[in-house]
This record gives sequence, structure tokens and C-alpha cells, in this order.
Amino acid sequence: MNIQRIEKDIQQISMFNETPEAGVTRFSYTEEDQKAREYLIREMKALGLTVTVDGAGNIRGKRQGKFTEASTVMTGSHIDTVPNGGKFDGLLGVVLGLEALRTLEEENIQTDHPIELIIFAEEEGVNFGTPMVGSKALTGEITSEDFKNLKNPKGQTLYETLKAFGLDPDAINIQGLKEGEVKAMIEVHVEQSKVLESEGLTLGVVEKIAGVKRYLVEVEGVANHSGATPMNLRQDALSGAAKMIASLDELTRIYGFPTTVATVGRILCEPNAINVIPGKVSFTLDIRDVQSKGIDLVFQQFKQIFEEVLDVYDLMGNITQTGEAPVMELSSLVRDALRKNAEELHIPHRTMNSGATHDACILRSHTEVGMLFVPSIEGRSHVPQEKTSYEDIEMAGEVLYRTLLDLAVSEKKGKIPGADTIKFY
Amino acid sequence: MNIQRIEKDIQQISMFNETPEAGVTRFSYTEEDQKAREYLIREMKALGLTVTVDGAGNIRGKRQGKFTEASTVMTGSHIDTVPNGGKFDGLLGVVLGLEALRTLEEENIQTDHPIELIIFAEEEGVNFGTPMVGSKALTGEITSEDFKNLKNPKGQTLYETLKAFGLDPDAINIQGLKEGEVKAMIEVHVEQSKVLESEGLTLGVVEKIAGVKRYLVEVEGVANHSGATPMNLRQDALSGAAKMIASLDELTRIYGFPTTVATVGRILCEPNAINVIPGKVSFTLDIRDVQSKGIDLVFQQFKQIFEEVLDVYDLMGNITQTGEAPVMELSSLVRDALRKNAEELHIPHRTMNSGATHDACILRSHTEVGMLFVPSIEGRSHVPQEKTSYEDIEMAGEVLYRTLLDLAVSEKKGKIPGADTIKFY
Repeated sequence: MNIQRIEKDIQQISMFNETPEAGVTRFSYTEEDQKAREYLIREMKALGLTVTVDGAGNIRGKRQGKFTEASTVMTGSHIDTVPNGGKFDGLLGVVLGLEALRTLEEENIQTDHPIELIIFAEEEGVNFGTPMVGSKALTGEITSEDFKNLKNPKGQTLYETLKAFGLDPDAINIQGLKEGEVKAMIEVHVEQSKVLESEGLTLGVVEKIAGVKRYLVEVEGVANHSGATPMNLRQDALSGAAKMIASLDELTRIYGFPTTVATVGRILCEPNAINVIPGKVSFTLDIRDVQSKGIDLVFQQFKQIFEEVLDVYDLMGNITQTGEAPVMELSSLVRDALRKNAEELHIPHRTMNSGATHDACILRSHTEVGMLFVPSIEGRSHVPQEKTSYEDIEMAGEVLYRTLLDLAVSEKKGKIPGADTIKFY
Repeated sequence: MNIQRIEKDIQQISMFNETPEAGVTRFSYTEEDQKAREYLIREMKALGLTVTVDGAGNIRGKRQGKFTEASTVMTGSHIDTVPNGGKFDGLLGVVLGLEALRTLEEENIQTDHPIELIIFAEEEGVNFGTPMVGSKALTGEITSEDFKNLKNPKGQTLYETLKAFGLDPDAINIQGLKEGEVKAMIEVHVEQSKVLESEGLTLGVVEKIAGVKRYLVEVEGVANHSGATPMNLRQDALSGAAKMIASLDELTRIYGFPTTVATVGRILCEPNAINVIPGKVSFTLDIRDVQSKGIDLVFQQFKQIFEEVLDVYDLMGNITQTGEAPVMELSSLVRDALRKNAEELHIPHRTMNSGATHDACILRSHTEVGMLFVPSIEGRSHVPQEKTSYEDIEMAGEVLYRTLLDLAVSEKKGKIPGADTIKFY
């Protein structure tokens, strides 16, 4: 692994950016995306990879193994960003996969299984409202029919957009993953939080992806003039909603597990005027945990507070569940391999959980999936300040490289070809 | 006073309405406003009043007194509404003034002072962002130059709008009130709260208009992924803001006077997405009291909570004062006259304060101003459900009529002409 090449890839691709003065903005299927794709495809072809682009815009570059029909070991991530995002999110996992393949080529290693670099399209979901479109299309979770219903703020459908980008969206319906096609998938990603940093660790091996339950909470009072209505005659919806929201932090710490998180991310107030007592407030509640019981424990307590507040402050209200995803456990096969390599390289690491879902997780129903987290400095992500140290990136690259080798060599052999020649920097 | 005529006026004028299926919407300078104006001017001219319309659209109808040069006794209110408002707000004060003048005419009473009905234009401020434009223009608080800077959501200036409505906006600059022109002004208005209703009273004589201080409170945390960030590593701006807002209700009751009211009417959250911990929240704080010390007591306590929350939850923030109006005391001359007449008619009433400012208050720097409140059923106002009982309206009309007479007859005479013939229903 060559850290200079990794750094150069990140710097070069980050220049394909719509907002050079304010972080990185590189939406899927734009000119900037096109330039990043050209750069990466050029690098992949230079390594002799067989490159294909499917109807959703996922790029796959395959390095053949000894057994041409063997299942493939996959690694990669995405290259699209949120508006004014950072340089590392998504791109890091792609560039580390590319560098692993470069190293295999330089070391002239032949694996038993093919190894494939994948660049998932449209992960962030900023433009068409649905995240992880590429990986979902690849696993058949969504089809080209769904692309016709996904619209960007300009009203263009994803289907039209893919066509305008020179792709054949209908082709995705027959280009999805076949059963047994992928032996394993590893995605390296920035942590997007500060757990690793706060514990002084370099790598996190992801064990579980948190389950989530989402709710819409509506609180109704009576809108009235802010000057004309004495405090004791008010039915102030925001005052009530604030009491509910204010309780959530303590309530989650006390009644949830240490792994439970609960967030009110979105709030709307009506009529939202400086001189009117709020008549209606609605807010979202997003509760996650890797132990599904934690979600229910916190929700039950929240619901009790909700009802108490409605009663005491003479308000009406209701809670509607709007979404749910179960807890997902990643592959122990991949986790063990990642951990073993981190241990052998004496890299400070831990097993951890992820509150967020990534492209790799979408493939979990098809194959053995593992994820490796690298610390986000100050936990910042999706912002121009997003940063991960190149020292940590180098460690992550080493572990990824060794783990890909472990997985791409038939277990029967008992020995990783070329492993003796791998140096730890 | 004839309650059937009052009811008919209210029903007729409420038909000039942009949203007949959803309350009353009658914005200033629209077709509906034009029709309401025509109805009222026709009624005023039928009584022999001298009707003028000034450059801001205020309508004044003068009934001459015995002494043509004597100062005028004024009554009236406004006829514009908020979107989907009610039938009574504003219109009630206009119709009661009209009915008082009709009664004077029927009773063939000549007063010493002229009596004038005034219909203030553009009171609500919904369209051009500034309330009480008509009364402010009449007192010279704003001029036709200001009209050029006031824009409606379509981008049209008030100046253009007045011209398109057939008025000469520049004329207002020389049409304003002259010193000593008005002897007194009385505005009857719906209470817009439920103080009178909850005490079983029929009328409220307004003593003071609450002073107000307005603030913008900004709370800044760190936006991060709602799933990826454990509770103990969060800097959640909404969680902090909710704690501040939640404290306001109790804090105002405990540290303020019974007259102090504090409202958070408007809240904005960024990025306001279900899966992102809020990075920034701003909200307005509106504190009012008829004792200015109450405002400061509550604000000081709020500021302490604000600072504690910032400290404990590791947030940044600041508070900016955005507006201020002092406590205003209405005329004791007019108050005493109103109270005397309510007492003589055995109408259950009280002296009360107003949290809201009305057109009449704008005239306070020019003349003796009094206000009479009539109960709002369930305290509702600015909504389709807005209602005031015709029994209460009749009482208010009687008190208004007698008080106008008291004020329009030179004190030296000691006797109200025609007072013997006034019947109480």
C-alpha cells in the first residue's frame, strides 16, 4: 500500500467539485461525477481490471482470480457527496479498494477468487430523496420502475437523469447480483462520529447496524395572540412540545441502554409567527439501537411523558410510527478476518456498532458483509471540515488489503500468498 | 341602538370575503375591501356625514357638531382581516361606531363637538409586514416614503398598491392629524382572549397596553448523523433549545407578575432533517407586561437558564434584542367615562389591560384614547371560529354611544343632551 498514491487520489478526485470554496459537492450523474468516474475508470483499466457500468451507474472493476467461475470478493463505497460535504466520506472506501488492487498487481499476487472494486452510485439520497439507490438497485430492492417515481427538486426523474447520463436504466433489472456471485463484501468508511477518537483508537470493526423506529409526533393547542392571553389561559403547543423534546436526552440515558440513541431532528411550528402562541407543533422522533429492546424502552417512556404533558397542559396530540428497520448483524467471518489483521498489525482497534446504514449493509441479504470504520476528526462528517488522518487511513488500507487476501484465497490453502512480502509501515 | 341593524351590518360586510368556505379573508385594497368600503360609505353618506378618504385609505366620516371648529370625538376600528380570520375583529368597532351615529341622527341630537367615524386601513399587517399602517400614517409615524419600502409577498410596494387602488399616497403627508384636531378616540374591539369570559363579565375597560421586549435566541451545536453519534457525545442544538423553551412557562409564572406573558412563537431548526442531530436552532422570545419590571424579571431568569443550558450541554448561543415598546397608559378621562356608563347600565365589567396594540393606541400621543373590550367566545380570534355574542355587543354599543355623547358635549353643560331618551334594552 502506498499512502502517497492514496492521498493523491483523494486530492485529485476532490477537485471534481461544484463548490470549491465550500467543501465538496459532487452529486451523482453530474459533470463532476462524470470526471471522477473517468479518473477512476482510467486507473482501474490501467490495472487490467474488467470494468462495467450498470443501468443505475454502479461501476464494477473485476480483477480475475485463479478460478474464473469463483465467487468474487468485493470492496468499495460511493463517490457522491451531500451538498458542501467533505473529502473523505465514501471516496475513502473507493480509493482504499483501488490501492489494494494496485498493490496486488505490483506484488504480482494471484488470488483464488476474483477481487472486485465497486463504486456504488447515488448513495447520499440528497437529490432523489432515497439513499443507497445504487446498492438497492444492485440487490433488486428497487427496480427501474422505481426510478420513474424518484424525482429531484427540479422535477426530473431518476430514470430520465440516468438516460441523460448515457445509461440504460432498464438494464439494471437483469444486471443485479446473482445468488452466490459475491463471496464477501468489505466497505471501509469514515466513522462519522467521535467514538474512536474519544477512545484513542485507529480502527473500528463494525458488528451490528442499529435498528431504527421513526415516529411523527403531533401536538395541538390553541393559537392565540401572544400579548392578549395570560399564561394560565394558554394551550401552547410549542411549550408542550418543548417539554417532551427536553425530556428525551435524560430519558434515553436513564431508560435506554448505552447504545440507544434518540433524536428529534425536524420540528415544524404553526403559524410560526413571533406574536402568536403556537397552535400546532409536529416533530420527528428517530430512536436507534443495536438491541431492539432499547428502542422500545425509550419509546415507552417518551410516550408516557407525551401523555403527561398533553394532560397537564391541556393539549391534544398523537404519535404515528413512520418507519422501522430491524437490527442487522454483519458477518462474523469478515469481522473475525478484519480483527485478526488489525491485531497482527498491532493497530489499536475495537468492535463497534454503527448507527447509520451504508451501501455494504444493503448487500447483507446476499453475502458476508463487513465494515471497517476510520476515525472522523472531532466526529465531523458531511461538512467541509470532515477529516480523517492519513496515518489512520494507511492502517485501514493495510487491514483491508490483508483481509481481502484472506477472503480471496481458498481457506484450504492455509497460507496467504504473498503475505510474507507485505510490509507494515 | 338597534341590534338588528348591527347584526345586519356584520353579516352583510362579512359577505365581502375571499374565502367564504373558510372564515373571512378581506385584505386591504382588494375587491372585497372595495365592496366593504362602498357599503360603509353609502351608510355614512345616508346619515349626512362628510366622508373623506386619505392617501393611506383611511375613511373618515364626520357628523358636524354645534361648534364647527371644535375638536372631534372619534370612534372606529378597521375592516381588514388576517387570512381565514373571523367576522368580528375590527369590523365590530366600525359597525358600533356607525350605529352610534345612526342613533344620534334618529334621536336628532346635536352635540357640541363633531363626532367622527374612522375606518383605519391595513391594520393587520399581513400583506405588507407592518401592522396599523393607516393609523401610523395618520399620526405621521410613517410617511408615503415608507410606503415605497413596504412590499407584499408578490413584491408590489404599498405605494404602488395604493395608486392602483385609486388613492394618492403622497397626499397622506399633509392629511395627518393636526394638533388638537381630535378631542378623544374610543375603539371597541373583541378581547381576543378569554379573561372576560372566564370571569363571566360583559365588558372590559382598557387601562394599560402592555410594553413588549422581543428577542431572537440562537443556539448552536454540532450537526451530526442521528444514528452514528452516542447520546454522551452530542451537541444537540434542539435538545438545548427545548430545555430553554420548556422552562419559560413555569419561569414566567414564578418570577413574573400575574400580568407578565412570555411566548416563543417562532422556531427554526437547521438542517431540520429526520436523521440529523440539529446543528442550529433559533427562536423568538416575546415578553410583555403592563409593569415593565415584569418583562425584565422574566428575561433575566430566562437568560440565566439560557446560559446554564449552553454550559451544561456544551452549546454556543446568543440573544439579540429585536424590538421594544414601552408600557402605554390609556386616557383616564375616557376610561372614567366608559366605566361610569357601564356602571349606570349595570353591565358587569372590569378594568383590564391589553397585551395587544390596536389602532387607537397609535393615536395616544395625539389625544385622549380609550378602548372597550367585548368578550371573545373561548378566547378565539383571528380564526373562522371567532365569535362574540350579540348580547354583549349590544351592551358595548350602549356604553360606546353614551360615552361618545359624554365626550362630545362640553363639560360645562353638565347634562348629556338626549340622555333621557336613551333606553337600555
